[in-house]
Amino acid sequence: MDPRDAIAQKRDGKRLTAAEWQAFIRAYAAGEVTDYQMSAFLMACFLRGLDREETAALTQAMLDSGRRLDLAHLGRPRIDKHSTGGVGDKVSLVLAPLVSSLGVAVPMMSGRGLGHTGGTLDKLEAIPGFRTRLSLREATAELEAIGCTLIGQTDEIAPADRKMYALRDATATVEAIPLIAASIMSKKLAEGLTGLVLDVKRGPGAFLRDLDAQLELAQTMVSLGADHECPVVALLTAMDRPLGRACGNALETEEAIQALRGDGPPDLMEVTYALGVEMLRLAGITADAGDARRRLEGAVASGAAAGQFQRIIEAQGGNPAVVDDPALLPQAAECEFYTAPRAGVVAAVRPRPIGYGVTRLGGGRTKTADSVDPTVGFVITVKPGDRVEAGQPLASIYARDARGIADGRACLDEAVAIADAAEPPLPLVSHRVSRAGVEPYAAA
Amino acid sequence: MDPRDAIAQKRDGKRLTAAEWQAFIRAYAAGEVTDYQMSAFLMACFLRGLDREETAALTQAMLDSGRRLDLAHLGRPRIDKHSTGGVGDKVSLVLAPLVSSLGVAVPMMSGRGLGHTGGTLDKLEAIPGFRTRLSLREATAELEAIGCTLIGQTDEIAPADRKMYALRDATATVEAIPLIAASIMSKKLAEGLTGLVLDVKRGPGAFLRDLDAQLELAQTMVSLGADHECPVVALLTAMDRPLGRACGNALETEEAIQALRGDGPPDLMEVTYALGVEMLRLAGITADAGDARRRLEGAVASGAAAGQFQRIIEAQGGNPAVVDDPALLPQAAECEFYTAPRAGVVAAVRPRPIGYGVTRLGGGRTKTADSVDPTVGFVITVKPGDRVEAGQPLASIYARDARGIADGRACLDEAVAIADAAEPPLPLVSHRVSRAGVEPYAAA
Repeated sequence: MDPRDAIAQKRDGKRLTAAEWQAFIRAYAAGEVTDYQMSAFLMACFLRGLDREETAALTQAMLDSGRRLDLAHLGRPRIDKHSTGGVGDKVSLVLAPLVSSLGVAVPMMSGRGLGHTGGTLDKLEAIPGFRTRLSLREATAELEAIGCTLIGQTDEIAPADRKMYALRDATATVEAIPLIAASIMSKKLAEGLTGLVLDVKRGPGAFLRDLDAQLELAQTMVSLGADHECPVVALLTAMDRPLGRACGNALETEEAIQALRGDGPPDLMEVTYALGVEMLRLAGITADAGDARRRLEGAVASGAAAGQFQRIIEAQGGNPAVVDDPALLPQAAECEFYTAPRAGVVAAVRPRPIGYGVTRLGGGRTKTADSVDPTVGFVITVKPGDRVEAGQPLASIYARDARGIADGRACLDEAVAIADAAEPPLPLVSHRVSRAGVEPYAAA
Repeated sequence: MDPRDAIAQKRDGKRLTAAEWQAFIRAYAAGEVTDYQMSAFLMACFLRGLDREETAALTQAMLDSGRRLDLAHLGRPRIDKHSTGGVGDKVSLVLAPLVSSLGVAVPMMSGRGLGHTGGTLDKLEAIPGFRTRLSLREATAELEAIGCTLIGQTDEIAPADRKMYALRDATATVEAIPLIAASIMSKKLAEGLTGLVLDVKRGPGAFLRDLDAQLELAQTMVSLGADHECPVVALLTAMDRPLGRACGNALETEEAIQALRGDGPPDLMEVTYALGVEMLRLAGITADAGDARRRLEGAVASGAAAGQFQRIIEAQGGNPAVVDDPALLPQAAECEFYTAPRAGVVAAVRPRPIGYGVTRLGGGRTKTADSVDPTVGFVITVKPGDRVEAGQPLASIYARDARGIADGRACLDEAVAIADAAEPPLPLVSHRVSRAGVEPYAAA
């Protein structure tokens, strides 16, 4: 196979057969297709598109490039959640312990920060000692022992996808629906799930900015799941402002711990419960949304969810005492308030400048090999629609030094708008997409 | 600068400013933009296009990435020829000695085989000892001593272009007019020329297959030359069949030597003289095409051209005795005739299967790092329109072993069509493009 033939076909807007997808992805995983050939191919895919069958073939080829978790012996439903990525989105850190404390196995494989969005692995690694690089054997043992594992994509799972994901980030080819859908689903299908819940972000902080594209992504993933007898339910959730208050790795981990202890911000809890309800329903724990919601709230109130997070942290080499004392998380050298320049109504808290701001402070990556500083970021205590007085603190900036504080201030100047009036924000959860189609979301 | 910004701009069909082109190409030459980022960028350029100003800015940026030959002290016109690449195209090996024997300095920088086309450097290196990797200092000394040099693109000349050219070959992004024009012109302008003649190939063996594209390429390069006070004349020549008879490195070098000694195939001589006439006119040796043609024929007849090739070979470390005794060139282990399967008229000798056939026999590259076997290839003794009998030899196959002979036979089965009648071939030279515009070509 000459890789240029496949590249030229996609370049010219032709479709590849399933066998051609298999051959091209296998050759890439084997190093016979170079990174620079793959990135030209990905740009051609980005600009020319993939049809439904090609997307399925790409998903299958990436899935086949690695191993799969075989978890049937757990004897429990195995449900995961995946988010398309947002700012302040620490839902996974809350949801995995919470749902797994209710008898559902959660084999959660997450990613790192990408573009303006944070990554679950980076947040978990803010916990001293926490290891996200487990082998499949270790992950399986943890699932057997405590019903949950929070790991990175190992070398064994969809290695072709892992390499492509890093390339796409570096080559401005992230925002393509078939590539996003195939990337997510190849990893998730390798987890041996019996169901998957997707959190598809909406609004200016989402990778895909327009509602049609978001719904198409959700429907594509529902359909890819159906191909593999893995029922998928997607919720569209708001990313026109950060979720919760904290943005930055250790800050978000702290907020997730607060949420597990019953003290999370209302918007974070709403989204977490909405996704958790779908997970419990897919797991067959209960068919009733109201019942599912009460179980979730109960697990928080009883301390079961927080206790489960401690067990996960301990199993993965971290210091479980952070759950009782979040001050054990690494702390920024400098912290200053950001105050309202005028009185008025908060008209916008823009996620992208916040997300890029975290990166600028040292808390995100511009290259895959960059290391991240877990301590830096923002805690933004106002939401769009809030009335504020001049000089009122709106946020705290956490930075390494005075220059970081100044950079953070500039980011907030760009992100936070105060005006005389504000448009209403997006509903926290707006649509539910399943094999039954697209429905408006109705909260439990 | 984040390379992804420039990639995303091109991806979205926006234009880059001259300063953005400079910054992106400079960062690539410095290794700050990776190969995989550049190849995604090149695919976006391929699919979205570059406007006239962007093409000029890219040319300038690639030119600025390296050094230039300063040859004003030669006190002679400095004219080069460049071909867009074909099969059997050994014109440079004939033209450079021929024109430089008439008092024109020819600082010729050539390339290697690319796709189905051969490369002048590979052909020259079939001569035992011939060095094409000269420093600019060595090349300048050779020009001072004998008025010609035949070299590869050194690390000093347009290094950004050199890296991009290799990437484009590997990523199916060769056939884009602005990229081709900028690549050629950045190298040629670095040669310090007072004029340039372009051989733009037409027909199914050309990189650009359609006449509009070929004319646009010619006009783009004429215009880029004018930006730098380097007059450019382009001739469109036939590549619906190989040029001459020999295809393969040593075989073509042997044919070029025969041509210099007055025994070249008629089509090769026609194209060589047509380009040579333009070179002598641009050099100001004579304004009259007929006079120019007679001078060229005279230099072949007198042995001046062949003697000049000997001097060039000697200056570059090769064995000059090959000019008197081409049997000193490396010889293939196996040689067999290919005969006509039926009587009829030769309807096609398709260049692409011939060119890819040379590669398949080991005489070309599928990866930049591949080494080539100079001995293999074809000598095809018929031309489209020739009447042939069943069993008549049409070609000789030169190969390393019996398997190569069989592969060569399969290539010729694909390349050579015999039918009851044949369409007329393309005229050898059809159009002349200069600042005056596009004209039909009138032979001297």
